[in-house]
Amino acid sequence: MSNQRRFQAPKGTRDFLPEDMAIRRHIETAWRETSTRHGFEEIEGPTFEHLGLYTVKSGEGIVSELFSFRREGGRDDYALRPEFTPTLARMVAARGPGLPRPVKWFAVPTHYRAERPQRGRLREFVQWNVDMLGLDSPTADAEVLATGISALEALGLDPSMVTVRISHRDAVALGLESLGVSSESMTSAFELLDRRDKMPPEVFAEKASALGLDDDGLSDFDRLARTRRSIRGDLADLASESGVAAEAFAPLEGLRDALVDAGLADWCEWDLGIVRGLAYYTGSVFEVHESGGRERAIAGGGRYDGLVELMGGPPTSAVGFGMGDVVLGLVLEDRGLLEEVRPAPPRVFVLSAGEDADRPAHRLLAELRRAGIHARRSYKTTRNVGKLLGEASRAGATRAVILGSELGEGRVQLKDLVSGEQELVPLDEVVRMISGSESANG
Amino acid sequence: MSNQRRFQAPKGTRDFLPEDMAIRRHIETAWRETSTRHGFEEIEGPTFEHLGLYTVKSGEGIVSELFSFRREGGRDDYALRPEFTPTLARMVAARGPGLPRPVKWFAVPTHYRAERPQRGRLREFVQWNVDMLGLDSPTADAEVLATGISALEALGLDPSMVTVRISHRDAVALGLESLGVSSESMTSAFELLDRRDKMPPEVFAEKASALGLDDDGLSDFDRLARTRRSIRGDLADLASESGVAAEAFAPLEGLRDALVDAGLADWCEWDLGIVRGLAYYTGSVFEVHESGGRERAIAGGGRYDGLVELMGGPPTSAVGFGMGDVVLGLVLEDRGLLEEVRPAPPRVFVLSAGEDADRPAHRLLAELRRAGIHARRSYKTTRNVGKLLGEASRAGATRAVILGSELGEGRVQLKDLVSGEQELVPLDEVVRMISGSESANG
Repeated sequence: MSNQRRFQAPKGTRDFLPEDMAIRRHIETAWRETSTRHGFEEIEGPTFEHLGLYTVKSGEGIVSELFSFRREGGRDDYALRPEFTPTLARMVAARGPGLPRPVKWFAVPTHYRAERPQRGRLREFVQWNVDMLGLDSPTADAEVLATGISALEALGLDPSMVTVRISHRDAVALGLESLGVSSESMTSAFELLDRRDKMPPEVFAEKASALGLDDDGLSDFDRLARTRRSIRGDLADLASESGVAAEAFAPLEGLRDALVDAGLADWCEWDLGIVRGLAYYTGSVFEVHESGGRERAIAGGGRYDGLVELMGGPPTSAVGFGMGDVVLGLVLEDRGLLEEVRPAPPRVFVLSAGEDADRPAHRLLAELRRAGIHARRSYKTTRNVGKLLGEASRAGATRAVILGSELGEGRVQLKDLVSGEQELVPLDEVVRMISGSESANG
Repeated sequence: MSNQRRFQAPKGTRDFLPEDMAIRRHIETAWRETSTRHGFEEIEGPTFEHLGLYTVKSGEGIVSELFSFRREGGRDDYALRPEFTPTLARMVAARGPGLPRPVKWFAVPTHYRAERPQRGRLREFVQWNVDMLGLDSPTADAEVLATGISALEALGLDPSMVTVRISHRDAVALGLESLGVSSESMTSAFELLDRRDKMPPEVFAEKASALGLDDDGLSDFDRLARTRRSIRGDLADLASESGVAAEAFAPLEGLRDALVDAGLADWCEWDLGIVRGLAYYTGSVFEVHESGGRERAIAGGGRYDGLVELMGGPPTSAVGFGMGDVVLGLVLEDRGLLEEVRPAPPRVFVLSAGEDADRPAHRLLAELRRAGIHARRSYKTTRNVGKLLGEASRAGATRAVILGSELGEGRVQLKDLVSGEQELVPLDEVVRMISGSESANG
C-alpha cells in the first residue's frame, strides 16, 4: 500500500479536529438532552454484530452493503452495524417480557455502510436513534416525533426550514387497493412507490403494468404518490387530493390527534409518497426533510411492530426513528447555525512573567483545576506580558493571572481581558476569587 | 448460524442497558470534564483505519490481534482500531507544522482487539486518550499525568486505592548498561524486563544469558526490575535500592520536580519494572494500578517522540496515556463507587386521573418539555391515583402534577412526593412553577 493512502483517513470516514468535534458534540448534546427531557434513557450496543442479525431481517442481499469480517481462525461472521434497530430489537428480545413497558430508549451510535461516499452519505456516521416499544398507540408515534422535532428546535431550526413528512402504510395500502392493486402485489407496489423517482418513466410504466394498473391506474398511482397536505386540514382533503376514498384515511385520525396535542402541527405534513425502503415498517412512516428539498432526508422512521418477535422476543409494538449527523450538519451549516460553535474557552489563563514564577505558576494552575476551573497557561518561554496576554485572548479567556515581579510579596495581577482592568491580589486568594466569580463558560 | 448465537451480542462485546449506560456516561463525563478543565480539546477519528497504519508501527505480527477486513470488491485492507495513538499521530502528521504547539488533545474512542476475552479485557472497549505533542519538557509528562489522576479523583478514587507507577526508559537503559547489557541488546533487554513475570524461571535465565548476563547479572537485573520507591524520596535511594549508579537516575529529576509541582506526589511512585510493551515509547513510561495489584493496569502511557515522524510528519515530541473503561469499571465497582450511579430521574411526573384529562395531560407534558424540564408520565390506563403516584416515585420523581376532577375549573394538584404536601394550582401556572423551582436533577 502506498504511504499516501495509509496515512489518510479511509475513504468516506472523517477526522474530527477540535473545531469539528465541537460541532459533533453540539449536535450530540442536543440529542442527548432532548431525549432525557422526553423521558428516554440511553443505551448502547456493540459496534459490530453477528452478520446473521442483519440477514435475518433484510436477506442476503444486504451483505454487499455491509463491512463484514471474520476473526482470524474464528468461525463467526460479523458486520459493522449499518443501523441500530436490529441491535435494539435483539436487546429487547433478550430481556423478554420482564422489561417494564413501554420501553423508551435512545442511542447515539456510529454506523457503517460500504457504499460510494457522496454528499450527505458517508461510510461512517453517527445516528441518533429514538425508540418506544410496548405501547400500541399513536401517542407513541407522536412522542418519538416530538422528541426528534424538539432536538431540531434546540439546534435552531424551525418549521420554515424543515418539514416532517408523514404517511401510514395502512392508509396507503387501502388507497392502492382502491386503485386495483391486489394484496399479493402490495409489497411490490410499495417498492415501486419508494423507488419511482429513481427509474426512467418507461421502467416505471412497465412495473406499474405488472401490478395490474392500466394507464388510468398509473396516473392515479402517481396522483396518490404526490399527495401532500397540512396535518391541520381535514382528512377529507387528502381524499379529494389523492382521488382515494376517504375511508382509506381512517388510520391517520389517531395519529393526527396525537400530533396536534403534542403541539407539532406546524412541523408536520402528510406525504403519501413517503414509504421508507426498509421492509420492516408496519404503520406510520416518516422522514424529516430540509424544506427546500435540496438534501437527503435528515431523519427517517416509523412503526415496526413485528421486529422484536422476528428476533426471538415476544410480540411487541414499536416505533422509532434515526437521525444522522451528516445531512443534519449540512443543513445547520447552510443556515448559519454552527458559526458560534467552538471548543469551550478557558475561564482563566495563567501567565508566568518571570523566571522564578514558573513553579508557582504550575502550582497555581494545578490548584485552579483541582477547584474545577478550566484553566490554561502559555508554554512559550517569552516573558513579554503583552505577547502572553495576546495568547490568552486568542484562547478565548476572559481573565488572566499574571505572576510577575510582585510574586516576592505573595501577590499577583488579576486582569479582566474584556474591560482591561487589573488589580493586585494575594496569590493564595486567586482560586477563591475565580471560583466565586460568575462565568458562563466555566 | 444458530439463532442462539445470532441473537446474542458477539463474544467480548457488551450490551449497555440504561443502568449500564449510566455508568459508562458517568465515567466518560468525568473523563471529558477533567480533560477540558486541564485545557485539552476533544478529537475523534474513524473507527477503522487502513491496516497499514498499524503494521507500519508494530509490524505484520499485530495483524492476528486485529479485526481486519476488506470491502466487497474493494482493494484496501482495513482494521478496527486497536488503539488511538496511530490515528492521533496520523492527524498531527497531516496537519504538519501549521498546527499551533503544543497540541493538547483528548479522545474517548472505542477500540477492538481480537483476543480471547477475560476479566478486564474485552474485544470492544472504550478508552480515554490524553496526549500532549510539541512540548519537549517533563512539564508535559506531568500535565497528562495530572489530568489522568484528576479524573480518578473525580470518580472517587484516592492514593490509597490506586498508584501511578512511573519509570523512564533512559534511566533504565543506563542502569541496564551498567549491568553489562550492550546497546545492541537493549531492545531485547526491555522485552525481557516487560515479560519477565510471564515466563518460567528457566526461560528467563536462558534469555538473560543471551543478553550477556551471568548469574550475578541476572540477580542484578531482577533487583532493578523490582525497584519501587516513593517519588518524594531522594533519587539516591533509587540507586541504593536498585544497585545501579546514581548517575543513571538523572533523567528522572525534571520529571520528579514537575510531578511534585503539580501536586501529584501522593499518587506516584517510581517502579523501574514498568516497561510498557509497545515499541514506540522513548522516555517516561507509566501505568496506573489498583493498589492491591488485583487487576490489570487501569491506564498506561508514556513518551513517544518518534511516532509523528514515522507517520510522515515533522519530528514532534509527544506524551500521552490511554485509560480503558473495563478495568476502571471493575475497580470503581469493587470500591462501591458506582452504587449511586443511575439514569437521571425526572423532575416532574404528570398523571392523568380522568378520561377527560388525557389530552390536557399530553399538552402539559409537551409544554413542560419545551420549557427544558425532564418530564415523564404514566402510560397505564388506570385512574387509581395511588398506583400512579407509586409509579412516579419508582421513576425517582420528586414532584407530580395530577390532572383530576378540578381540571374543569382549570386547576390541578401539584404534589411534593418527598414531603407528601400538595396544593391546588392553576393549570397554566404549572410550567412556570416547576421551571422556577430549585432542582438538582432538572
